[in-house]
Amino acid sequence: MPRETHEDRSGAARPDAYRRAADYVAAALIYLRENVLLTEPLRPEHLKPRLLGHWGTCPGITQVYSALDQLVRERDADVLLVTGPGHGAPAVHANLWLEGTHAAYDPALSRDAEGLRELSRRYCAPDGFPSHLSPAVPGTLHEGGELGYALATAFGAALDAPGRVVACIVGDGEAETGPTAGAWHSPKHLDPETGGAVLPFLHLNGYKISSPSLFATMSDTELTHLFRGYGWDPRIVDVTPDGAGGPDRPDRGDRGDRSELADAVADAHTAITAIQRQARSAEAPDPRPAWPMIVLRSLKGQGAPAEVQGTRIEGTFHAHQVPLPDVHEDPEQLRALEAWLRSYRPEELFDEEGRPVPEVASHCPEGDRRIGMQPAADGGRLRTPLDLPPLAPHAVDLGEGRGRTTAGPNEVLASWLTEVVRRSAERRDFRIVSPDELASNKLDAVLAATDRAGTWPVDGYAEHLSRDGRVMEVLSEHNCQGWLQGYLQSGRHGLFPTYEAFASVVDSMVNQYAKWLKTSREVPWRAPVSSLTYLLTSEGWRQEHNGYSHQGPGFINNLITKKSTVTGVYLPPDANTLLVTMERLLDETGKVNVVVSGKHEAAQWLGLDEARAHCAAGASVWDWASHGEPAAPELVLACAGGIPTVETLAAARLLREDLPEAAIRVVNIVDLCALAPADRHPNGMADGRFHALFGTDLPVVLDFHGYPSAVHQLLHGRPRPDRFHVRGYVEEGTTTTPYDLLAANGTSRHDLAITALAHLEDRHPKARALAERHAAHRDALRAELRRTGVDPAEITDWRWSA
Amino acid sequence: MPRETHEDRSGAARPDAYRRAADYVAAALIYLRENVLLTEPLRPEHLKPRLLGHWGTCPGITQVYSALDQLVRERDADVLLVTGPGHGAPAVHANLWLEGTHAAYDPALSRDAEGLRELSRRYCAPDGFPSHLSPAVPGTLHEGGELGYALATAFGAALDAPGRVVACIVGDGEAETGPTAGAWHSPKHLDPETGGAVLPFLHLNGYKISSPSLFATMSDTELTHLFRGYGWDPRIVDVTPDGAGGPDRPDRGDRGDRSELADAVADAHTAITAIQRQARSAEAPDPRPAWPMIVLRSLKGQGAPAEVQGTRIEGTFHAHQVPLPDVHEDPEQLRALEAWLRSYRPEELFDEEGRPVPEVASHCPEGDRRIGMQPAADGGRLRTPLDLPPLAPHAVDLGEGRGRTTAGPNEVLASWLTEVVRRSAERRDFRIVSPDELASNKLDAVLAATDRAGTWPVDGYAEHLSRDGRVMEVLSEHNCQGWLQGYLQSGRHGLFPTYEAFASVVDSMVNQYAKWLKTSREVPWRAPVSSLTYLLTSEGWRQEHNGYSHQGPGFINNLITKKSTVTGVYLPPDANTLLVTMERLLDETGKVNVVVSGKHEAAQWLGLDEARAHCAAGASVWDWASHGEPAAPELVLACAGGIPTVETLAAARLLREDLPEAAIRVVNIVDLCALAPADRHPNGMADGRFHALFGTDLPVVLDFHGYPSAVHQLLHGRPRPDRFHVRGYVEEGTTTTPYDLLAANGTSRHDLAITALAHLEDRHPKARALAERHAAHRDALRAELRRTGVDPAEITDWRWSA
Repeated sequence: MPRETHEDRSGAARPDAYRRAADYVAAALIYLRENVLLTEPLRPEHLKPRLLGHWGTCPGITQVYSALDQLVRERDADVLLVTGPGHGAPAVHANLWLEGTHAAYDPALSRDAEGLRELSRRYCAPDGFPSHLSPAVPGTLHEGGELGYALATAFGAALDAPGRVVACIVGDGEAETGPTAGAWHSPKHLDPETGGAVLPFLHLNGYKISSPSLFATMSDTELTHLFRGYGWDPRIVDVTPDGAGGPDRPDRGDRGDRSELADAVADAHTAITAIQRQARSAEAPDPRPAWPMIVLRSLKGQGAPAEVQGTRIEGTFHAHQVPLPDVHEDPEQLRALEAWLRSYRPEELFDEEGRPVPEVASHCPEGDRRIGMQPAADGGRLRTPLDLPPLAPHAVDLGEGRGRTTAGPNEVLASWLTEVVRRSAERRDFRIVSPDELASNKLDAVLAATDRAGTWPVDGYAEHLSRDGRVMEVLSEHNCQGWLQGYLQSGRHGLFPTYEAFASVVDSMVNQYAKWLKTSREVPWRAPVSSLTYLLTSEGWRQEHNGYSHQGPGFINNLITKKSTVTGVYLPPDANTLLVTMERLLDETGKVNVVVSGKHEAAQWLGLDEARAHCAAGASVWDWASHGEPAAPELVLACAGGIPTVETLAAARLLREDLPEAAIRVVNIVDLCALAPADRHPNGMADGRFHALFGTDLPVVLDFHGYPSAVHQLLHGRPRPDRFHVRGYVEEGTTTTPYDLLAANGTSRHDLAITALAHLEDRHPKARALAERHAAHRDALRAELRRTGVDPAEITDWRWSA
Repeated sequence: MPRETHEDRSGAARPDAYRRAADYVAAALIYLRENVLLTEPLRPEHLKPRLLGHWGTCPGITQVYSALDQLVRERDADVLLVTGPGHGAPAVHANLWLEGTHAAYDPALSRDAEGLRELSRRYCAPDGFPSHLSPAVPGTLHEGGELGYALATAFGAALDAPGRVVACIVGDGEAETGPTAGAWHSPKHLDPETGGAVLPFLHLNGYKISSPSLFATMSDTELTHLFRGYGWDPRIVDVTPDGAGGPDRPDRGDRGDRSELADAVADAHTAITAIQRQARSAEAPDPRPAWPMIVLRSLKGQGAPAEVQGTRIEGTFHAHQVPLPDVHEDPEQLRALEAWLRSYRPEELFDEEGRPVPEVASHCPEGDRRIGMQPAADGGRLRTPLDLPPLAPHAVDLGEGRGRTTAGPNEVLASWLTEVVRRSAERRDFRIVSPDELASNKLDAVLAATDRAGTWPVDGYAEHLSRDGRVMEVLSEHNCQGWLQGYLQSGRHGLFPTYEAFASVVDSMVNQYAKWLKTSREVPWRAPVSSLTYLLTSEGWRQEHNGYSHQGPGFINNLITKKSTVTGVYLPPDANTLLVTMERLLDETGKVNVVVSGKHEAAQWLGLDEARAHCAAGASVWDWASHGEPAAPELVLACAGGIPTVETLAAARLLREDLPEAAIRVVNIVDLCALAPADRHPNGMADGRFHALFGTDLPVVLDFHGYPSAVHQLLHGRPRPDRFHVRGYVEEGTTTTPYDLLAANGTSRHDLAITALAHLEDRHPKARALAERHAAHRDALRAELRRTGVDPAEITDWRWSA
């Protein structure tokens, strides 16, 4: 936990000296492991063996950090910084070290020469700080390794935090990404009354790894048009030096204690508070406030040598990563490095013990106001568990009988969620994000308790839309994901219902977020944040109408490649199991979970207490659906998912009629990862329990909601996995009827019965003929539905009978 | 293949009548299966049993289609239409039927009542046309089911097609997506001299499924600013009616034979040709041409009833899908439907046989100029195989000895690709897309043969940048993917080298594209297009410096969930196998392929002829690396991927020293899908060959480049898959050294040797002690690298010895 350290703040702050110090330290972190303050001539043995970190973006990051420091000092602003260019980590570390946040978190990183040497040794060392930002870095809630998500994340952190200013640095490389391009629309969803502000800095230093950036080709007029068009009030600040290279020059407009950028930040803050004051007062609020944003034109890698050995460095993409890569072997590059480092005049910036001189130290805010100490960056500390309402009033009563009572699982869930939304109304710490699909997914009952968030006025018809709504609908899974990440990471709660097939739009975002969570667990001071839960609905089996593009259960496959300690996949077979699952996950921390649920009216199988027991077990034998000798089954019919449960139970009925003398056990799996061996997934069943369900050498016909490959990989490590005959979606799809879609993929009740019969042939000679009959019947049904265009009544009217 | 059909074009074209006819047909396709021309009163039995298709966007699509028809007729423009809102398929089908394209492709879809009835019966029927667009629809190269990718795809189709105008409808829902928001920057990469034009229509009808769209909240000024900021010259056209609902009203500005939209399209075309003329003449071209784009404000679902039973329909989101969903049971809705359909006055639009009257038919372009007949939408017909240069001049000679000769695989490939680029210079039908990583991935040698494409001037330093360059770098995997898809689908060739970890950014795009390819194979008239090949490089094992975010091999896992007939995964272990693989894939059609290759200098294993044999086999025993009795091994060491090959061979050497008496076989796998049973993947090895490599009950230690789960799922269906002990990336990562990263994931040479020894213990009692020694040594190496910050020389200097 953070602790205070001594600092000498007796001198007046000198922002220019502060930035020189931060740039020096950032460069030192990249190159030096000894002689970190250049108290002696630079020799090869002072260099790190590997030179990592990206210099190019560092000076610009420090420009922003330094200007934000001034804002905090002068106005006591509550600033959270989201740094998009995570490869500019040296600059962030430099600022954290100078302001003493590093020392507060770890005394070994003290604000003196020893602490700097230790920081430099840790930066990019095994077991140290990685080259990019990471959960191990205080004040950080965004890694910035995969570019594109900083801006939406920043908005998520600003929602429902009316006093917070989330500053967000967006590199001009990152700005080329689609997700960032779409995230600029976010203010249209940010309520200035109940929410905080996002102050973006488009860091326009002109170059990516080896090319100019797209934004570098745009004129000030075009940039102004673009951001005005998005709805912002852009301010262009140019901190490139007037003259030729060298870090000594004052910034353009640096007037003693202020830079043009600091002025622009102060001015932006004034505009932000004006918007907020108006929105929070009795005055009529501006219906479409133009929030300030800053385009920061800087010189790429400012301070690096202008040219070395004929290659232009400062101000070109050659400054992007490590500008002088051959310092180990090339004495000329080593000399250039020393000249570069000495040009910051470290001897003026640090005292004899290596402590920042008062003019530097005084620039930083103090105590908890230091940007690195921002508590929202470690949102688990701010998190209060949700006040979850009891399930019972919302649960489905099996009054019409098991399998004969029907309900729409999502509608049942929505009834409970409505109460979750109500109970969180005062704290405003629960939100639902969704790509315009809440109504389509039959979750719109929650709109009785809150509206959709929409700040800008609509010149036309709309329903359930208001500025302070807590449902966020936008046709951008990227925005939904980014907003929710920022919201959860800053200590709140949420849910992401979405079309199953299109969840893969954010595959890469969830990859990165799962990595963030996994690493967070390894950082002792981080408190866990609420789990991120997807409700995958409009599932492929009932997208028979929308067709092939809408049939894709692969999000599960991607998720289970992540670390098993941070992932879960749940397939509740009915409404009550869905309720129990959601109750658990909305109370959980530190994971990414997928819940698959259908939106259509469907048969209900378990009472609430049964559902609790089933979900706690992860998978259970459904005795009431099994037949024959319970202790000695000949075959297991297993299922995971709503539609597979129906088809499996229908197949079980067929088999009971076919072979009343056979012993068939039915197992339902609600927690998919329970299938994995216990040493591979924390939810994995112990061997004994696994064998109690599936035996050790029984044939198992397992009908799975998604791709069979997901089950195959989870079963690896279980004995004799080849006895599991998994059926699922095998990419046969189009617009057709539900039964036809099942049959095309070999997952209809008849296909399941046929598969089971094939494994019963040895003991039941008539099984082959029975299977042939089912195949003929299936084909007849498919022929019939081709004539009528709808599924036969035999399918649509089917109900379970015990 | 398309054939001509009769049409009566004796009347002067009446665009308003044409649009009435198209809107009528679109509505009929949604609702009717009999009485399709309403020649008798509408009765429930005329209705389709299921009502599918999205009405809301249909009238707007027809507005655009109709205006483009006029452009084609008046100026003989060569128009390809990319329709983003694929759920507006009824409108597209209506236009295709009216212009006779449907009849040309299938005489049963003749332009008369019988043909319309057949079309209506097929639309959304099993085995018919799906509810969205699909490869079965002539003139279509984009499905439009998952929204976001139309615009980038359109640009891909326009590249290097100087005579083509690619019109692209972007719905205002789709416009909210990040990928679309980023794609608006595409003109900065489109050369007006060598390329065609993209004419986007932002279809602003104001609503998504249940909410207003973001763009609906924007004023004309904001829209103009936004698109000017992106660099476009926007024109806002409002075709919403002045008065209240009803399809009878002339469009605003409809003046007999022209609408305001047709004028705007003509005007835009004039602007396009002016930009192109200037760029293609001796005059100085406009360095930043502002291409025209059209914002089309239309009334959502125009023509639908204004209000039914108290619900507003026309002009609201209630018109998004099927406006009157209860026509089967509700007589009032049925009456409203009949009134709606009759309001188009079909009796004026179709003659007694149901043929479009001359005023309607004459509106359409003729023959091959019909928009649906655009050959680029069936690009396989335009495709000419690449002129691939011989490999031999570029191949690595194993002069220093097998495993002792080193080369950088990507650099070797780049040398060959440079020649591919040169040979395609005249035809301009090969491009490389990459997110600013060509140099980082050591493929920049190709810049000797072409430049990076950049149209807008750069006010600063740049290298290898020109308007007509054929390398397209942008920090947006979405744009890269969309551009390449459009380029391939319109008959050209390309390659997509990218950072392995970030390929998942386009998981969902490749999902949809794989579906497109799979369905295309089922459409008899479609000719196959060039395969889409990713070169995944900067692979995770050598992203030890960039850290955890850059380590993610999951793109493979996603790809292998797709239909096996359209996917391939290749892991060439060295430069020559990479050359052979690429030669094959650049000549292939109809698939999505992943090739994983390292960019670092690495040991070379096979001569060119050996590489050819190895790649043809998919996997082979490497006898020279095996030891002991070749026919009766005790264990197989298998490997797939560049780094795994090195570690496996090093492990084989350790085992030879440990247990010279043991028989160890080494197998290298270059075609990952060869592991799958032959009935599950077309590349799958026959059983005999599989057993010849891996035996039937031998233990196999398989070191895989990616997640072990990818191999586990492919092996399903092989006998005794549990004897395969797969090592790979298990999400243990940070910034560290290469060896430490391997060891953290249990894939170092020592871990492989330890795993192998565990399976040799029964026959070789000393195996356990040997394994303990390797474990201790591994731990000592990790301790050493923590001290020094770099891998021990024992690792970095290791070379294979026979």
